[in-house]
Amino acid sequence: MSVTAPQGFEAAGVAAGLKSTGKADVAVVVNRGPRKVGTAVFTSNRAKANPIIWSQQVVADRTVEAVVLNSGGANCFTGAFGFQTSHLTAEKAAELLGVSAGDVVVCSTGLIGSGDEVFRGKVLAGVEAGIAELSAEGGQAAAEAIMTTDTVAKTVVVRRDGWTIGGMAKGAGMLAPGLATMLVVLTTDADLDAVDADAALRRATGVTFDRLDSDGCMSTNDQVTLLANGASGIRPDLDEFAAALTEAADDLAKKLQGDAEGASHDITIVVQGAASEQDAVEVGRSVARNNLFKAAIFGNDPNWGRVLAAIGTTRAAFDPYDTDVFMNGVRVCTAGGPDRPREEVDLTPRATELVIDLKHGDATATIRTNDLTHDYVHENSAYSS
Amino acid sequence: MSVTAPQGFEAAGVAAGLKSTGKADVAVVVNRGPRKVGTAVFTSNRAKANPIIWSQQVVADRTVEAVVLNSGGANCFTGAFGFQTSHLTAEKAAELLGVSAGDVVVCSTGLIGSGDEVFRGKVLAGVEAGIAELSAEGGQAAAEAIMTTDTVAKTVVVRRDGWTIGGMAKGAGMLAPGLATMLVVLTTDADLDAVDADAALRRATGVTFDRLDSDGCMSTNDQVTLLANGASGIRPDLDEFAAALTEAADDLAKKLQGDAEGASHDITIVVQGAASEQDAVEVGRSVARNNLFKAAIFGNDPNWGRVLAAIGTTRAAFDPYDTDVFMNGVRVCTAGGPDRPREEVDLTPRATELVIDLKHGDATATIRTNDLTHDYVHENSAYSS
Repeated sequence: MSVTAPQGFEAAGVAAGLKSTGKADVAVVVNRGPRKVGTAVFTSNRAKANPIIWSQQVVADRTVEAVVLNSGGANCFTGAFGFQTSHLTAEKAAELLGVSAGDVVVCSTGLIGSGDEVFRGKVLAGVEAGIAELSAEGGQAAAEAIMTTDTVAKTVVVRRDGWTIGGMAKGAGMLAPGLATMLVVLTTDADLDAVDADAALRRATGVTFDRLDSDGCMSTNDQVTLLANGASGIRPDLDEFAAALTEAADDLAKKLQGDAEGASHDITIVVQGAASEQDAVEVGRSVARNNLFKAAIFGNDPNWGRVLAAIGTTRAAFDPYDTDVFMNGVRVCTAGGPDRPREEVDLTPRATELVIDLKHGDATATIRTNDLTHDYVHENSAYSS
Repeated sequence: MSVTAPQGFEAAGVAAGLKSTGKADVAVVVNRGPRKVGTAVFTSNRAKANPIIWSQQVVADRTVEAVVLNSGGANCFTGAFGFQTSHLTAEKAAELLGVSAGDVVVCSTGLIGSGDEVFRGKVLAGVEAGIAELSAEGGQAAAEAIMTTDTVAKTVVVRRDGWTIGGMAKGAGMLAPGLATMLVVLTTDADLDAVDADAALRRATGVTFDRLDSDGCMSTNDQVTLLANGASGIRPDLDEFAAALTEAADDLAKKLQGDAEGASHDITIVVQGAASEQDAVEVGRSVARNNLFKAAIFGNDPNWGRVLAAIGTTRAAFDPYDTDVFMNGVRVCTAGGPDRPREEVDLTPRATELVIDLKHGDATATIRTNDLTHDYVHENSAYSS
């Protein structure tokens, strides 16, 4: 059910010819109210796609009526023509829905530099077809329409007493922190004001999507949008709602990690004993971006030396001679030297846990990443995105 | 001739059994004077190997008599025992040479975490054998003894009027800026005082080894040492010497790039039109570390979108809608959109030039990197270093 699990949302996914495979490539998600609260977080990449520039204006007033998403073209670095395409997309949807274009978020994903006249025509036709098919059962179709190199549609539903959160996500490459790192739409029928919706979204993304760093490459098009309509009539407090939203976002982040391009291991890096959460995140990201460590995990090699070498490039409080490293539960490094024999570490399962104990405090953070594989190189050299 | 090309230097390379292949693995370079000026730059990784900790003390007084280098074991994270090994290595060499142990630099390279009793015994025996074989023709043998995954020995000779610089380098992986990025010994018979030698070394490494970023991974063992003995009796001025030393270092840096593990392209990233040199370096490094861009080059794909996406993650002054990108001479992106057709770019040669014009000033910088290939993943998942 994804985004249509909460009351008062409709969605659709249609094939508009943007994908050469003929699969669905335009999705529409509409909030039927009563409230039209909407907010979003965007990629912090300074090279932003046209739909990002458009949508940042849309959410400024925290009111969103609908989200239009397309795969099959990023509409990034397509000049003034491309920005006009995003604008026209919103206007088309607004006209058909009887709302203001300034309340329609637009998201695009696909090849950077593509977005010509033909692209525009297909997107606008897709918006029309999508809106004609809107239904309260359309969540799954919408989730499928935003897939690119994803192998599975990614959806989530989190239910609480009387209210619900639904969500969908796409993303398989260019996954790195910097606010959002993919296209995500989250919906809820909880009754939230704009301030709480925005606070909850930032709390949730800060510890989930922001800490997924599959390949260290930050996208130009990423956006996580939250729509809240109050249709349940129930008003959870901020902490309660933020916890549920974090659960939904965490579930989608795990699904993105599990479907990352070419990956053969999902690596959870837990940094503990840090002097600050910032230190823990910096250490986790540094290890997550170390190609030598990532290649070692691909080869089922518990190479703790590469972990310490990666930590050494950070500014975090740590003593290389008093840091513990555990791989899948086995302490392979302690006191600046080898500990248990490497043969004890079984790295054959896809789920891989690396625990780093910095022994400098009580702060902790978890970063999710993937290994560096032949398939990653292959997909990203052959697939032009 | 490498390090023995200048007058007054002797070297040797011997097989001490550290490499399972039986190839040479211990090198000794000795300065026969008259002056014994020596200085070095070290990895800025905070996780430092024992020989780095030792050698930092040695060069503090800018006097160096000899350099002992071994491949086949990094002696990194081998605890107090490992530090003692570096110390004993220097003492052994000092005793045989009749100099102070405090003037003997030690360098090691190989697997992190390896450096036990057996390793120590072999290194010490290798020092003895190496010193017995010292000769003014030993430069090539020394260069071969420091090879790890290198496929060729890397040496350089730069001659000026009456004085000479010689050098040798090893390095094929874990190449990233942070002062030195490999083991390098540079020698000269020019007459330099310690202050000029140190200034020239920092100038030269700052624009050569510091700007080689093959895989973004910073080593724990890297060190570039310069020895100067004044045997030529000629005293060049600082600018003249620094220029010649930069030429030698640049030649070795190019050779390291050309032999990087698994690489199929040597990518020269020229950033021009930057507001500052710092901006130019930051942009160049960001692109050099972008796995998606590097995988695209492996696939001969002139993917300029990934270049702009990488620039967007920096703090450099730039306008994504007014940045030019050239690949092998073809402008593929201008004014925030595609320019010449991608078919015009021939990426089949190993030498690849990416020019980024930020159009924000006159500063420029060149960063050297490599592509991300199947062979890189293979070598670094199978080879445990």
